[in-house]
Amino acid sequence: MRSRWEDLPEQVRHEARRSLLNFFGTALGGCRDGATQRAVQVLSLFAGKPEASVIGRSEKLDILGAAFINAVSGNVFDFDDNHHNTIIHPTAPVAPALLALAERQPITGRALLHAFVLGVEVECRLGNAISPGHYKRGWHITSTCGIFGAAAAVAKILGLDADRTVWAIGNASAQSAGLVETLGTMAKSISVGNAARGGILAALLAETGFTAPDEPIAGARGFAQVMGNAPNFAAVTEGLGETWEILANSHKPYPCGVVLNPVIDACFELRARPELSLDRIAHIRVEGHPLLRERTDRPNVTTGREAQVSAQHSVAAVLIHGAASVVQYGDACVNSPDVLALRRKVEVIEAPDIPVEAARVTIALDSGEMLTALVENARGTPKRPLTDAEIEAKVRDLARHGCPDCDPSPLIDAIWSLDRAKDAGAFMALARPTTPV
Amino acid sequence: MRSRWEDLPEQVRHEARRSLLNFFGTALGGCRDGATQRAVQVLSLFAGKPEASVIGRSEKLDILGAAFINAVSGNVFDFDDNHHNTIIHPTAPVAPALLALAERQPITGRALLHAFVLGVEVECRLGNAISPGHYKRGWHITSTCGIFGAAAAVAKILGLDADRTVWAIGNASAQSAGLVETLGTMAKSISVGNAARGGILAALLAETGFTAPDEPIAGARGFAQVMGNAPNFAAVTEGLGETWEILANSHKPYPCGVVLNPVIDACFELRARPELSLDRIAHIRVEGHPLLRERTDRPNVTTGREAQVSAQHSVAAVLIHGAASVVQYGDACVNSPDVLALRRKVEVIEAPDIPVEAARVTIALDSGEMLTALVENARGTPKRPLTDAEIEAKVRDLARHGCPDCDPSPLIDAIWSLDRAKDAGAFMALARPTTPV
Repeated sequence: MRSRWEDLPEQVRHEARRSLLNFFGTALGGCRDGATQRAVQVLSLFAGKPEASVIGRSEKLDILGAAFINAVSGNVFDFDDNHHNTIIHPTAPVAPALLALAERQPITGRALLHAFVLGVEVECRLGNAISPGHYKRGWHITSTCGIFGAAAAVAKILGLDADRTVWAIGNASAQSAGLVETLGTMAKSISVGNAARGGILAALLAETGFTAPDEPIAGARGFAQVMGNAPNFAAVTEGLGETWEILANSHKPYPCGVVLNPVIDACFELRARPELSLDRIAHIRVEGHPLLRERTDRPNVTTGREAQVSAQHSVAAVLIHGAASVVQYGDACVNSPDVLALRRKVEVIEAPDIPVEAARVTIALDSGEMLTALVENARGTPKRPLTDAEIEAKVRDLARHGCPDCDPSPLIDAIWSLDRAKDAGAFMALARPTTPV
Repeated sequence: MRSRWEDLPEQVRHEARRSLLNFFGTALGGCRDGATQRAVQVLSLFAGKPEASVIGRSEKLDILGAAFINAVSGNVFDFDDNHHNTIIHPTAPVAPALLALAERQPITGRALLHAFVLGVEVECRLGNAISPGHYKRGWHITSTCGIFGAAAAVAKILGLDADRTVWAIGNASAQSAGLVETLGTMAKSISVGNAARGGILAALLAETGFTAPDEPIAGARGFAQVMGNAPNFAAVTEGLGETWEILANSHKPYPCGVVLNPVIDACFELRARPELSLDRIAHIRVEGHPLLRERTDRPNVTTGREAQVSAQHSVAAVLIHGAASVVQYGDACVNSPDVLALRRKVEVIEAPDIPVEAARVTIALDSGEMLTALVENARGTPKRPLTDAEIEAKVRDLARHGCPDCDPSPLIDAIWSLDRAKDAGAFMALARPTTPV
């Protein structure tokens, strides 16, 4: 933890700002989801001093509670960022811990960004060491590794010495939890919220001298041995301070399974063609990697959550609405008659020669005319990352959806200039509604 | 969860009272331990409405925080109860959840005891299904299984329907955590505290309709599959409602490793012999099962925590002080010159013919005279359980040590008559100091 701000390349700093910005967008989008609502309802019963902001909401909670809820909001749609090798969503556990702490003690924007980068580094490197076996066994890696990132980031802010930093990691190891079985249910969000909350708790306890094992990760009954299979410890330290895991982070353009991204991109292309008229469509063929069919060939879906992994729904919704946002993955859109009618015409076919980041969509018109679009690299993949402007647009769209009373512009500006902020906590006020909601 | 109070045999009800009583003793003993102090210090910063009592302390905390701390206090010395087959400490995760809830909503003593028995049943049956592999792999089973017991017990009190009860278990599965690597450090206590806290949270969230998987335990990526190796699911349901796991619960007479119990019993016997004079001891031989030497042959210990697994220290302390209580496993006693001098004379020898619940201690006097005591069944083992009076004495001793300002008598009376209490929450006042501490 001797890392200095000066050691971070500008590219790393910029990706940290992008990741934070994207996180605020998904949190604004998710701050009124059913899981978030219920968690706020229960935690409010026991909340302490209202020191910390809840993104997109007017109530404040104690630091631990706010960190929990903000992590839930940010991740609830799985629309948050994605670390390439591990499929960790890195920001949701780490950023809320730091943001809550910043409302309790003065932290500069630079210190917050720096701790955030280190926290992401810790969780993703741990994830690298135990991937892919860890997730495959059934661990929700965002939560299980995320708590270590949160603990490390908070330890950095608190300025803990080497022993206490190890204890913070050890105190996190006692709380690392989260099962893949919970995905698709609200229960998923508990482990994500706990990762942020538990990371703060781990570091604050360590600060008081609360002891923990000397080798919480590599010890015989430590995290990697118990929860990893044949961990590759070299992955934790190799190139530390030279390569940066945050540069392997990407941002999703659409709130659905990533394998659908090239399909949606192709539909946008087709929709822009002057020849296309929706009422003349006879049939739509979606071709892609076998994984595409395996995961998304779902013609009959009835809820937004199911629709997130339905190619049929995604194609119909994009062609009709010209958008693939949270609204298009809401229950209302999923059950609207025009979408239902169009998705019956969609067929998903395996094309083993098409790689997973690509897809081809072919529309047959009544006239017999065929329109085809092939997308080789979907938006939001490492080869075609979202631009800064695209992330901004995503944030505005999500804010409109999840928190219409929030004005995201000052927040967006504040994040781009966070390195120059004297008080990182102050800008949390910009993430709250301008009128009480 | 259709179980009725009438279905519980009187023996089961009585063991529930005994387990609760023993728990209050260990919590009174542990309420000022370093780990407890630090946890109170940190959680107090963020505590909400002070509705719930903290055993042995004058501050109140919110329900979730109090449940956390009381579980920590009760288990911090590992002096709490022990379920024979799984080595789960069953009461620490379950009782604090119920006791805290009882200060928030009216619960009869009978309802509390009933829910407690069911909670213990759930956690121990789950433990049976994954033992011994689960602990062996490195899981701190008291915490990992305890959270399910706490969630089930609270679900029973809340009167959740079948779906919501399954969700409560699923919400617990998202939080199940705790590593054996943390034992011997304060970090152990975090997972135990979280088991009680998380169990309440799991059930309260389920009550609001917070969804969770349909098969949180047996599902392909559920608890038993991910955290157990080759789980034996029959153990969860076989004989349900006919046999009771709480009857396999036992209570420790001494705050140290259980393998030392017969050694300590033998020392008490020898100390009572008129021939013994401490200043005439030439040598002491301790003979026992190979496990005894493996785990407790530690002549050089400097802290109370280490002394808990030292045969040399235990023998010396009991012969000198005529007691084996928390004081004898405190740092002061461990480093006192008379104890240091005597423990140098103690030798631990393997006797493969002696079973693990037995031990032989032989004292050679300067005169050449030999005094021998063989203990076949140690106190506190299933064959020689502590009597009710012995548990009471343990509670008084622990209260004297950990909370001198508490008068345990009214508390003890209240627990023995808990089935007749109209308001189970009211008696928590009896577990607090009579003067502010």
